[in-house]
Amino acid sequence: MKNTFGNNITVTLFGESHGAAVGCVIDGLAPGIKIDREILLRSMNQRRAVGAISTARQEADEVQFLSGVKNGVTEGTPVCLVINNADKHSSAYSELENTPRPSHADYAAECKYHGYQDKAGGGHFSGRLTAPLVAAGAILRGALLEKGIKIGTHISRLHGVTDMPFTSLDKDIDALFNIDFPVLATASREAMMNEILIAKQSGDSVGGVLECAITGIPAGVGEPWFDTVEGLLAHAMLSIPGVKGIEFGDGFALADMYGSEANDPLVMSGERVVTSKNSNGGINGGITNGMPIIFRLAVKPTPSIAKEQDTVDLAKGECVKISVGGRHDPAIIHRARAVVDALAAITVADLLTVRFGTDYLSAGETK
Amino acid sequence: MKNTFGNNITVTLFGESHGAAVGCVIDGLAPGIKIDREILLRSMNQRRAVGAISTARQEADEVQFLSGVKNGVTEGTPVCLVINNADKHSSAYSELENTPRPSHADYAAECKYHGYQDKAGGGHFSGRLTAPLVAAGAILRGALLEKGIKIGTHISRLHGVTDMPFTSLDKDIDALFNIDFPVLATASREAMMNEILIAKQSGDSVGGVLECAITGIPAGVGEPWFDTVEGLLAHAMLSIPGVKGIEFGDGFALADMYGSEANDPLVMSGERVVTSKNSNGGINGGITNGMPIIFRLAVKPTPSIAKEQDTVDLAKGECVKISVGGRHDPAIIHRARAVVDALAAITVADLLTVRFGTDYLSAGETK
Amino acid sequence: MKNTFGNNITVTLFGESHGAAVGCVIDGLAPGIKIDREILLRSMNQRRAVGAISTARQEADEVQFLSGVKNGVTEGTPVCLVINNADKHSSAYSELENTPRPSHADYAAECKYHGYQDKAGGGHFSGRLTAPLVAAGAILRGALLEKGIKIGTHISRLHGVTDMPFTSLDKDIDALFNIDFPVLATASREAMMNEILIAKQSGDSVGGVLECAITGIPAGVGEPWFDTVEGLLAHAMLSIPGVKGIEFGDGFALADMYGSEANDPLVMSGERVVTSKNSNGGINGGITNGMPIIFRLAVKPTPSIAKEQDTVDLAKGECVKISVGGRHDPAIIHRARAVVDALAAITVADLLTVRFGTDYLSAGETK
Amino acid sequence: MKNTFGNNITVTLFGESHGAAVGCVIDGLAPGIKIDREILLRSMNQRRAVGAISTARQEADEVQFLSGVKNGVTEGTPVCLVINNADKHSSAYSELENTPRPSHADYAAECKYHGYQDKAGGGHFSGRLTAPLVAAGAILRGALLEKGIKIGTHISRLHGVTDMPFTSLDKDIDALFNIDFPVLATASREAMMNEILIAKQSGDSVGGVLECAITGIPAGVGEPWFDTVEGLLAHAMLSIPGVKGIEFGDGFALADMYGSEANDPLVMSGERVVTSKNSNGGINGGITNGMPIIFRLAVKPTPSIAKEQDTVDLAKGECVKISVGGRHDPAIIHRARAVVDALAAITVADLLTVRFGTDYLSAGETK
Repeated sequence: MKNTFGNNITVTLFGESHGAAVGCVIDGLAPGIKIDREILLRSMNQRRAVGAISTARQEADEVQFLSGVKNGVTEGTPVCLVINNADKHSSAYSELENTPRPSHADYAAECKYHGYQDKAGGGHFSGRLTAPLVAAGAILRGALLEKGIKIGTHISRLHGVTDMPFTSLDKDIDALFNIDFPVLATASREAMMNEILIAKQSGDSVGGVLECAITGIPAGVGEPWFDTVEGLLAHAMLSIPGVKGIEFGDGFALADMYGSEANDPLVMSGERVVTSKNSNGGINGGITNGMPIIFRLAVKPTPSIAKEQDTVDLAKGECVKISVGGRHDPAIIHRARAVVDALAAITVADLLTVRFGTDYLSAGETK
Repeated sequence: MKNTFGNNITVTLFGESHGAAVGCVIDGLAPGIKIDREILLRSMNQRRAVGAISTARQEADEVQFLSGVKNGVTEGTPVCLVINNADKHSSAYSELENTPRPSHADYAAECKYHGYQDKAGGGHFSGRLTAPLVAAGAILRGALLEKGIKIGTHISRLHGVTDMPFTSLDKDIDALFNIDFPVLATASREAMMNEILIAKQSGDSVGGVLECAITGIPAGVGEPWFDTVEGLLAHAMLSIPGVKGIEFGDGFALADMYGSEANDPLVMSGERVVTSKNSNGGINGGITNGMPIIFRLAVKPTPSIAKEQDTVDLAKGECVKISVGGRHDPAIIHRARAVVDALAAITVADLLTVRFGTDYLSAGETK
Repeated sequence: MKNTFGNNITVTLFGESHGAAVGCVIDGLAPGIKIDREILLRSMNQRRAVGAISTARQEADEVQFLSGVKNGVTEGTPVCLVINNADKHSSAYSELENTPRPSHADYAAECKYHGYQDKAGGGHFSGRLTAPLVAAGAILRGALLEKGIKIGTHISRLHGVTDMPFTSLDKDIDALFNIDFPVLATASREAMMNEILIAKQSGDSVGGVLECAITGIPAGVGEPWFDTVEGLLAHAMLSIPGVKGIEFGDGFALADMYGSEANDPLVMSGERVVTSKNSNGGINGGITNGMPIIFRLAVKPTPSIAKEQDTVDLAKGECVKISVGGRHDPAIIHRARAVVDALAAITVADLLTVRFGTDYLSAGETK
Repeated sequence: MKNTFGNNITVTLFGESHGAAVGCVIDGLAPGIKIDREILLRSMNQRRAVGAISTARQEADEVQFLSGVKNGVTEGTPVCLVINNADKHSSAYSELENTPRPSHADYAAECKYHGYQDKAGGGHFSGRLTAPLVAAGAILRGALLEKGIKIGTHISRLHGVTDMPFTSLDKDIDALFNIDFPVLATASREAMMNEILIAKQSGDSVGGVLECAITGIPAGVGEPWFDTVEGLLAHAMLSIPGVKGIEFGDGFALADMYGSEANDPLVMSGERVVTSKNSNGGINGGITNGMPIIFRLAVKPTPSIAKEQDTVDLAKGECVKISVGGRHDPAIIHRARAVVDALAAITVADLLTVRFGTDYLSAGETK
C-alpha cells in the first residue's frame, strides 16, 4: 500500500522470497510491443548470481506470462508475469525468528506487520523481488530501444576501486549490455572482484556506487514540481534494497563549486541545442533538456554477513550475538545494475507515455 | 500534471513568479488542527531574504487562507492558501526571452510549453513557488509537534566550509528554529556568509549541502517497495529547485565500507529497541525503524549569475553571451532549509495519516 | 482527501459557501488553449440563478485566474481560478447550528468533521462549490470544441413533466447552449417552470432527470476495468449535490428487455462502423465505440425547504421541528445542467489526454 | 491503465478468458486478517454457473495464493491470487475474428488495441475476470464481518418479475448468503428462472436489476467531492460487464417527488441519530450518515445470443449476419450478485482504511 509505481504505466510488485512465486503486474503497456527475448534473458542473467562472488542459491528464474502477452507480443491489457520460487532453504532462517539482523529490514518489518510477515529469506523484502522488476523493465527496454532510447549502468566505485567514467555513451551502454560484471575498464573487473572475494573470505560484504545513463530521451518530458524526472527516478531507485542515496549530473560535487563553474553553457550542435558539460544530468527544472540523463546511486554493503554482530532478542528483550548463516552475497552491486536499468526503463517509459499518449511505445501499426 | 504530492494528505502547487499570486491546496488535513502562528511566521521569515546575502526583492509574503480554516483552526476541508505577488520587476526578464540561462529551467520549459509559459521571474519554476510550500509545511509542523515529532535542517557544508554535525538532535532542532542562518556552530555562520559575500562580489553564486533530521516518528511507517520512506522523501525533496542529490544516513560514504563497519547493531535502550549508530538514517527496508530520520541534500549554486556566460539565441539559432541582470541570490541554501523542513513535514504527515487514519493529526476532541 | 478528480488532467476543488472564495486548481492542461470567453460567461450564467424560480442570492461570479493563464491562453502550468464570495447572509444559518436539515449533508458532515466544519451556507457542501467546476469545465469545453467534440444537457423530466428526446444531437446541443432553461421542446419550459413555481409557493421543492450527450468522441478511449468511461463519468457526476443515480444508454430500461431487443446491431455508415440504436450510450466494455455518449442523472428535490420538518437537536439529543429559512432554490436542476456539462468536459478531456498525450488539446502550434 | 481500483486498499486485475490464468493483486490489506474459507468458497460458488440456466463451461475455480497469505492469514504484503484457466474451447471464437458481436466489447476493443487483444472468449473483457474480484472481495467481506459490517445483494427485478423488497436487512443478508439464486421471496426464484429458461429456449437472454445493502458502516466516511461514497461505489460497479446504471436510495424515483415527500426526517433511536426512511441510501453529501447503504444496478441482457443478428465484417467493411455459438449464459444477473458483493466489500474496506488507518481491518493483536 503502495507496492505500485508509475502513473500511466504502472508496476505492482508482489511475492515473498520463500512463497509460491514472485511477480508483478504491468499495466498501461501499449498493444503491439514485441518482447525482445534477448534483452529479457540477458537482463535476467545479469541479475542472477555469478560464480564465486555471489550466493549459491540457484534459480532458473523462468519468466512466465499469465496475461497480457500473446505470441510474444503485448496485447495492451495488464501483463502479469511470475517467477516461481524453487530452491528454498528456509531452515537457515528459523533461528532469526526473534533476532533481527542489523541494518536489515527485519525489525522495521516487525513493527509494521506485527509478526504476520513471512520472515523466511527476507520475505517481501528479499532481493528476489527484484527479479520480476527486471523482467518488467526488460520489456520496456526493448520498446524504448525501438524509439532510440538506450539505458546502461556500470559500477563506478566498489570499496575504494574506481571504474573509468562514461566516455562514449551509446557505445559504453552497448558494451555493458554484453558483460556480466558491469564495468567500463577491463582492469576494474579484476580489482573489484578481488575486493569482493576478500570480503567474502572474512565473512564480510561490500557496497559501492552505480552510475546509470539514459540516452535518446527527448526534451520537454517531466513536470516542474513533484513529478520531476529527478523526483520520479529517485522515488523508483530508492526502492532498491540497499540503495541509500542518489545524485544527478555532478550531484554532491556541485556543493563546492561556484555558479560560474557549475553552470553548463548552452551551445548549438548543428540544428540542435545542447549543453557543454551535462552537469545537470539531462534535467533542468525537473524536465528533460534533451541531454542524456545521468545519475549515481549509493549502494550499501549487504547487511547479511557471517561475521558475528550485536542485536537483540525481541522475545526476551535482551542483547544477543548473531552470525547470519544461509547463503548470502558478499556483494550485490553487480547484480543490482540490472534492477537499476529496469526501473530506469519503467520510469522513462511512463514519462513518455504520459507525454505522448498510450500508443507511443507500440510498434505503431495496426495488426 | 502532477504538481501534486502525497497520498492521503496532498499538496497541489500553483502560481508564477510574476502572476497574480502563488499558492497551494492542502487536502486531507484533519479537522481541528490549530494553526501555530509562530511556526508559520518564523518559517516564512526563514524562507525570505536575509540582509546583504540575499536578493533585494522584498515581499510581505502574507499568507491568506481562502478556504478550510476558520478562526485559525482547520475545518477538515481543503485548505487553499495564497500569497499575492506584489514587488514584480518584469522588465529585467524581457531580454531573456530567447536566451535561456545556462543550468536554469528556461530551455527545458521551452521544450515542454512551446513558448506559452510565463517567463517573467522564472514563472512557475521560480523559487517563489516555495513560499506556499513553506506555509503548508508550517501547518503540519505544528500538528506534528503536538505528536512529539520535530523537524530541523542545517547547512552542513557551503562551498567548502563545514558545519559541526548534529549532536543532541532535539536541542539542535530547537536552536535551528530560532535562527535565520541555519548552522549548528556559531563560527560556521560567519565563515559561510563570508563565502557567500565573496561570490556575490564577483557576480557569482554558491551552493552546499543541507542536512535534515526528523525525530519522534514511530517505527513501522512506510512501504517496502516504491512508497518507501526514502522514496517519498526523495520524490518530494528533488522538487526543490537546485537540489541535485539526496542521501540517507551514511549515504554515499557506505560505498567504501565493509558490511561489518556499515552495519548498525540493535541494542536495548530501556524497554526500547534502538540502533547504535543510526547509519541507515532511521529507515530499513523502506520502513521507519524508530530512530531519527536523517538525510542530506546536494544544492547546486544558483544558476542566475551576473558573470557573462555562453548560451544560444533560440530565435536565431546561434551562440550568444548573456549576463543575467535583475535581482538574484548569490546563495539560496540558507533559505532552502525552510522548504526542506516544510516538505519533510508534509511527507511525514502523509505517511502517518495513511498509517493511523484521517484524524491522527487532529487535536482529537470533538469541538 | 480527495477533493481531486482526474488522472492526467486533474481538478482540485476548494472553498466554503461563506468563506473568502471558492475555486479550483486544474492541472495537466495543455499549453496554448485559448479560453473561450463566450463559453465561460454563458456557462457561468447557466449555473446562476434565473428569475423567479431561483434563489435571491446574487453573485457576480467573476472568475479570476491566479495562475496558469496569460492573455487568455493557458500556459501549461496549473490553473488556479477563484470566485470571491460577496453576498453572504450567514445569520439565517446560525439557528441550524445543532439541527441538521433532513436529507442534507449536515449530519454526515458533523460525523466526519466533529463540528470543525464551516456550517454557514452549507460550507464546503454548498452548491456554490459548483461555480469553479463550471468555470474549469468551460475552458475544456472550448478546447474540446476545437476537436469537434460537443457536450449538451437538457432536463428530460421534472416532477412528472417530460421533455422531448434528443433528435438531432449536434443541433440540439447548439440550441441548449443558447437558452437559460435547458429543454428541447419550447412547451416543456412553461410546463416545468410552472411545476417549480407551484412547489415554491408551498415552500416546497422539485427534482428531475437530466440527460447529457457528448458527440464527436473517437472510439477506443477508456479502460476495460475500473477506469471505464462509465465508471469515470459516474464517479464525477455523483459528486454533484442531489444527484442520486446515473444510467447510460437505455440504462434501467434494459432490465426488462430480451437480448435480441436490447442488442444494438453494427452497420456501415459509409466507411464508418456505427450502431443502429446507440442503446449502450456510446460505450461497450468500458470503452468508447465512436457513437455519442448518452447518460441520464436522477436529481433529487432540493432538501432545504420552508415547510416544517422533523429533525433532531444534536446538542440535546431530542426531536425538534425545523423550517429552513434563508434563500433557497425550489429547484436546482436547470442550474445543475451547467455542472453536468462541465464535469463531462473535464472527464472526457482527461480520457483523451491519457490516450493521446499532454498536447492533445493544445492549439498545436508552437507560439 | 488503470485496471486498478482503490486508494489505500487497491485491487489490480489481470487475465484473459483463454489465457493461462486470471487473477488480481490486492495491496494494502492489514496483516493478520484470517481468510474465511466458507465465505470464499460460497462466494466463488455463487459466481459460478448454476444448472440449466447457465453456461456449460465448468471451471474448478480454485483460488491459489501466490503471495501475501501464510497459513490462511494475511501477512500485510500484497496478495496475488490466481485462478487457472482450464476448460477453454477457443474454436467457437475464431469465426468471430472479424465480426464484432452487437453490444459486446468486441468493436470498442478493436479500436483500442488495434487487433493485438486476445479475442478468444472475450479476452480481458470476459466475465471470467470477475472470478478473482469475487475472491478478493470474499477476503474483505470476512474482515468486515468481524467489524459488524454485512453485505448482501438480491435480484430485485428480472425481465418484468419483481422480488419482494428488503424488510429485515441483516436477516435478509444472511439468508441471501446461503442460497444460490439470490431472491428474498421463494416465489421469485421459480418465476425468474422460468423467464431465463424461456429466453434460453429461443436462443435469447435477459437482464434485470440488482439491489445491494451494506449494514453496520459507521457515519462520517467518504469525501464531500469526487471521492464521495456514491462516486466510488458507482466507479467500481460500472466496471461490471453489463451494468449500465446505478441509483442510491430512492434514486430515479426521487425525480418525481416534492422535497417534502423525498426528505428523510432525522429521529432519535435511543442514543443514536437515524433517519426515518433511508431514502438517500445511507449517504448524504457524499458521506455515510450511519444508515445502511442501499443501491440498485441496471444489468443489461447478456449480448452473446444464438439468435441471428446484424453486424459488420471489419475486414471487408460490409454488413453480415452472425449467430453467436459457443457456451453462453441466457442470464448472468444471478451470478453477478457475487461480483456486486465483492466490489462493495472492496470499496467499503478501502474507505474505512483511509478513515481509520492501515490496521483497521486487522484482527488487532500482535501475533
